[in-house]
Amino acid sequence: MEITIFGKGNMAKAIGHNLEMGNDVSYYGSHDTVQQFGDLVIMAVPYPALEKIAQQYQQELSGKVVVDITNPLNFDTWDELVVPADSSAAQQLQADLPNSKVLKAFNTNFAATLMSGKVGNNVTAVLVAGDDQDAKNVLKDALSKSPLKVMDAGKLSRARELESVGFMQMTLAASKQIGWDGGFGINE
Amino acid sequence: MEITIFGKGNMAKAIGHNLEMGNDVSYYGSHDTVQQFGDLVIMAVPYPALEKIAQQYQQELSGKVVVDITNPLNFDTWDELVVPADSSAAQQLQADLPNSKVLKAFNTNFAATLMSGKVGNNVTAVLVAGDDQDAKNVLKDALSKSPLKVMDAGKLSRARELESVGFMQMTLAASKQIGWDGGFGINE
Repeated sequence: MEITIFGKGNMAKAIGHNLEMGNDVSYYGSHDTVQQFGDLVIMAVPYPALEKIAQQYQQELSGKVVVDITNPLNFDTWDELVVPADSSAAQQLQADLPNSKVLKAFNTNFAATLMSGKVGNNVTAVLVAGDDQDAKNVLKDALSKSPLKVMDAGKLSRARELESVGFMQMTLAASKQIGWDGGFGINE
Repeated sequence: MEITIFGKGNMAKAIGHNLEMGNDVSYYGSHDTVQQFGDLVIMAVPYPALEKIAQQYQQELSGKVVVDITNPLNFDTWDELVVPADSSAAQQLQADLPNSKVLKAFNTNFAATLMSGKVGNNVTAVLVAGDDQDAKNVLKDALSKSPLKVMDAGKLSRARELESVGFMQMTLAASKQIGWDGGFGINE
């Protein structure tokens, strides 16, 4: 599968590390010009960069599976998400890309746990929310050769809860109660 | 320490199992009449029962540490929390009990993991949110002889995120992707 990753930071690299197992992955910076998109597009950029990319490539991303991984924290206060209380970054992205199939995924995974494939003794589990089952299957197939476990977190509106999970996990790490290589492991 | 638990269900028993290690615990049903409260009061009742208990005992609970453990799901749809998007059951309880010190805790723990003290290979961690550090210390002291680990989830407004974590964990169990004895283990 051809996969496009926006972003070149730790999360882009850690997600790409897994997706490169069996797929052809291309990386672009937020300001790069993308000539051709894969069928699966990972938006591994900070939340504030999402809207502009969506506006720039709305046409080109039509029909594509687009994955939002952001945690839209207010990083000045670490005391709130900057999205409306009854919405989420993923739902906003879907509104900006009405002809794309938006998924929320990877925002509850720290980069180190995606690189290692483990959270403590647990296999790293990717929680995926989205309204389109085919789109979820595309992401699951793309990760099928990686060590990661994919779990279905429900429809796209569950992104609100996933962003809360990500927020809580980040505050536990920022307060040094867990490491950035630890966090929530999911036990079956 | 004298501890009062409202509720006689699985969560009341599982929390009580831990608090009985070193404390004197009394259990009451939602409709029982309580003559005397301990310094720590655990509201191990379903969300809809909270408001009435708070109204009935607002005076008696003045100055007490009161712990909300609820997950205020819409159990008809399993598709939303019934509290306002910008609030939480715990914040509502604090508003109903303005002279009590309300904490959110235990809502991210399944009963079985409180009974066993383990989530998979992880020690069961209790995430506690609240605005009063002394109140958090009271709960932490009360659990000091139990096998549970207590972690600080921040101020009471973080109860919103804790309720989202609880909601997500419950949907994973309801969809049989995890068991009711599994879920989020917290790795340091």
